[in-house]
Amino acid sequence: MKRFLNTRETIVTEAIDGLLLSSGGNKLARLDGYPHIKVIVRKDWDKSKVAIVSGGGAGHEPAHAGFVGAGMLTAAVSGEIFASPSVDAVLAGILAVTGDAGCLLIVKNYTGDRLNFGLAAEKAKQMGRKVEMVIVADDIAIPDAPKPRGIAGTLFVHKVAGHLAEKGASLDVVKQAALEAAKATYSLGISLSSCTIPGQEPQRRSGEKAHRQAELGLGIHGEPGVATIEPKSVQHVVDMMVEVLDKKLPGEHKFALLINDLGAVPPIEMSVVANEVVNRFGKRVEIVFGPGPLMTSLDMNGFSLSLVELNDQRREALLSPVEPIAWIRGTKLETPTILPMPKFAHLAQFEASHNDRAAALVKAVCEELIAKESELNALDAKVGDGDTGTTFANAARSVVEKFSAKALPLNNPSQLCLAVGELLGKTMGGSSGVLMSIFFTAAGTEMAKSNSWHAAFEAGIGAVQHYGGAKAGDRTMLDAMIPAIAELKSGSLNAAADAAEKGAIATASMTKAGAGRSSYVGSTNLIGIQDPGATAISFAFAAAVKAS
Amino acid sequence: MKRFLNTRETIVTEAIDGLLLSSGGNKLARLDGYPHIKVIVRKDWDKSKVAIVSGGGAGHEPAHAGFVGAGMLTAAVSGEIFASPSVDAVLAGILAVTGDAGCLLIVKNYTGDRLNFGLAAEKAKQMGRKVEMVIVADDIAIPDAPKPRGIAGTLFVHKVAGHLAEKGASLDVVKQAALEAAKATYSLGISLSSCTIPGQEPQRRSGEKAHRQAELGLGIHGEPGVATIEPKSVQHVVDMMVEVLDKKLPGEHKFALLINDLGAVPPIEMSVVANEVVNRFGKRVEIVFGPGPLMTSLDMNGFSLSLVELNDQRREALLSPVEPIAWIRGTKLETPTILPMPKFAHLAQFEASHNDRAAALVKAVCEELIAKESELNALDAKVGDGDTGTTFANAARSVVEKFSAKALPLNNPSQLCLAVGELLGKTMGGSSGVLMSIFFTAAGTEMAKSNSWHAAFEAGIGAVQHYGGAKAGDRTMLDAMIPAIAELKSGSLNAAADAAEKGAIATASMTKAGAGRSSYVGSTNLIGIQDPGATAISFAFAAAVKAS
Repeated sequence: MKRFLNTRETIVTEAIDGLLLSSGGNKLARLDGYPHIKVIVRKDWDKSKVAIVSGGGAGHEPAHAGFVGAGMLTAAVSGEIFASPSVDAVLAGILAVTGDAGCLLIVKNYTGDRLNFGLAAEKAKQMGRKVEMVIVADDIAIPDAPKPRGIAGTLFVHKVAGHLAEKGASLDVVKQAALEAAKATYSLGISLSSCTIPGQEPQRRSGEKAHRQAELGLGIHGEPGVATIEPKSVQHVVDMMVEVLDKKLPGEHKFALLINDLGAVPPIEMSVVANEVVNRFGKRVEIVFGPGPLMTSLDMNGFSLSLVELNDQRREALLSPVEPIAWIRGTKLETPTILPMPKFAHLAQFEASHNDRAAALVKAVCEELIAKESELNALDAKVGDGDTGTTFANAARSVVEKFSAKALPLNNPSQLCLAVGELLGKTMGGSSGVLMSIFFTAAGTEMAKSNSWHAAFEAGIGAVQHYGGAKAGDRTMLDAMIPAIAELKSGSLNAAADAAEKGAIATASMTKAGAGRSSYVGSTNLIGIQDPGATAISFAFAAAVKAS
Repeated sequence: MKRFLNTRETIVTEAIDGLLLSSGGNKLARLDGYPHIKVIVRKDWDKSKVAIVSGGGAGHEPAHAGFVGAGMLTAAVSGEIFASPSVDAVLAGILAVTGDAGCLLIVKNYTGDRLNFGLAAEKAKQMGRKVEMVIVADDIAIPDAPKPRGIAGTLFVHKVAGHLAEKGASLDVVKQAALEAAKATYSLGISLSSCTIPGQEPQRRSGEKAHRQAELGLGIHGEPGVATIEPKSVQHVVDMMVEVLDKKLPGEHKFALLINDLGAVPPIEMSVVANEVVNRFGKRVEIVFGPGPLMTSLDMNGFSLSLVELNDQRREALLSPVEPIAWIRGTKLETPTILPMPKFAHLAQFEASHNDRAAALVKAVCEELIAKESELNALDAKVGDGDTGTTFANAARSVVEKFSAKALPLNNPSQLCLAVGELLGKTMGGSSGVLMSIFFTAAGTEMAKSNSWHAAFEAGIGAVQHYGGAKAGDRTMLDAMIPAIAELKSGSLNAAADAAEKGAIATASMTKAGAGRSSYVGSTNLIGIQDPGATAISFAFAAAVKAS
């Protein structure tokens, strides 16, 4: 299985059933004619206004069934993949929704669709219904084509006709507006690969060169386009498309632009396309629809651009809200708003100060961590990647540097914590650096409120657990920190250091690391080895005791 | 170029700019911090309510920037492709939108995101902002994972928090609801291929077997899943996914379901998936969102299912309308409505009758067309596929059959036309069959009104031109029909037959076929050859003259 489908024979009816069972589906109904008659209608329709009916081959979803709903289509008639629905299917659709106000058929310019919808229209007329048909031929790819194809620009015609019909306009008015919208619409597609028709082998151009090619101006069934190009970038592709479109577009006009995903272009790429296209057209585009998948061609890796000349009637119709969720609400283009960056505090803002005890503690802890670099690295080599010593030593060296430069706010415990937090976030590296930065930042913030080392460090521990996701027993530095900081409540640094050491030793019997790099190491390799992070913490506490 | 992008370095900022320049983009703004600070905010935001901030690596579009807007996110912070945004970027986002009501960060459970958002939160707190963070870990793929990943179910949490914040709830209330929603959410993904990371070669499993494989329970960055399976159909895939989900889902609950396209599954296939999934879950699913691309993984050919337990708060929050167009409005599931087929008339309804002149005409024309089968085929072999004679002869034989069975309404010209139209639509085949059916149906309808052969045939010709798209001079049967029927106005069948013959002869000098099969033939091959369709028409008129 290369595509998400069950059987080729059931894909269309299953997709329609899926539509009825998903977002917006409870506003729709279908006619009881499976598998031959595949007609989707508005469930709330009372035939009081002009009915708008469209359809054609399947494979272009969400077109057309996805656009059935107030303000757009009244009914959609689906054929099989890329094959026109039968005359009976179209006739069933017309009869199901057409009241005294009549019905407008909107048909893409393919012979099969024209003839089947056309004959159905004549049969419906013979049965006394008022039926008109508008043919959309918006594809401008092939110069002087006698019968240009109908592609995604058809949706503009649906929208204009649907809006007027919903407002209660007469069939003549709706038809005239649809005709004019169809004439004022210009579309062009491009694709990096054709589509995979269910039950057939993928259509691939052969050879390495083919991988670099794109088809410009192709149809929505993978029909050949006007040229095969070697695209270099989205910019290059869009430049070429706009050049071709510009030859047909009337000057001095404002347009609405529809950016249509042909099936398999992911949203991030479609946004890159949108950026390029809108910038390229500049002020000529007043309203943008999309990007998004509106008229697809199965899994085609391509997109199409459709433009329609705006007038007051079409501007209002295109921007009016509609019920179908497949329609992407348009927006009037504005110059993007760029807001100034908020200002935020950095280390430089802390005021340096001196305090003997703090100086001694900071110095002792840092020197100890620098001294234990090799020992901690060796320990980490057994259970991790051997850099715990260097990570802590580097962090300590950066603090020593600021200390020696007398740049630390030693006499302000809150600011000292914040300064160390700021510094470690930049110098320590890796997840440990961010975690230690979180610890000291949270501690400094709490210290400003409570002026208690115990409360401050508890806050730091809490933040490390919350954001880091590790807990006691996970074989991390927390196994030394948590018991040590708990002892600080009594005010005894000695007791805290003892607890840190015991905690670090206890990690040697923890055979499953719940977090951190050791979580990737098998448990037999962990037995008897202390966690290097917890050990570093116990060294730091021991050094603090000596200095105090 | 295999994907639509310009450069790997600019894809994320270009995609954000594209968002700002497309549907819904005029409601958004960005901070002035490119390329490092990629923060999108609501343009209308006044900081009067709790701010909801989310984000993470890029490549998951429309998440998260696409969900910024009233009722969902206040700001989104984007990193590079699959890489967490920096602490400074997150802090900028928080500071840009957080007022006295505070800010809730919603973060998917990845270490980088947790730590960078976490440190930013602590810094913002230190600067006096009220900030809370909720971590979403909805991926249930890996049994007993210590840190389940956050995937598309995160959107439920955005929606719940966004709704409450918009309603003016306090930070505590919003956070509690988000926490509970996160805990009640269960997601699982599947993919037929991994994603193509810009600037890297596509990640492909090698060998023929790999083409049949799918990854069950993979992450949104292409991380391995719980199993590699060989899927047979969508049904098979969905069965397996529901089996895995069922082991985790609490029983006796109603759920909302989100069906998420991971990037490159076209809409028709997503609808097939939706049909299978909704049917498989049955009455347990009360509300459906999607299918559609909501939290993608670049161009991954896969989808994910997310379910959240419903309670009154979440039901209201999930169904409330929101501003961002990327959000797909949910729908309460109902049993699909299937309406009865409209009844329409068929040939059997016409009442047989006799008329000498009509009988003679019908018989003569049919016999002539049968007699000329080989001659017309030979003519067509020079400019087409050599079957015009057989097409007309088969049509004539089917009329003769009904004639011999005395089944035709010969004494009612309108009904006779309609009956012949009905018959030819079924028996003549191809485009010609539908066109002749259109001709006689339109003629019969007009005949009932005006009782004029000339008016009736003019109506028929009009319909053939309108639906078929050919006109006089296009080298089709119209070139005999149009002049012949014009002569009918005077009532002279002789004059009509002469005009038909002249018209048919004139086609021999038409070197460009504007429609029909000959439009595929080079002009040098057409010189001197009469159009077979026009010739058949002239034969028919000649036969009618003889019989009258």
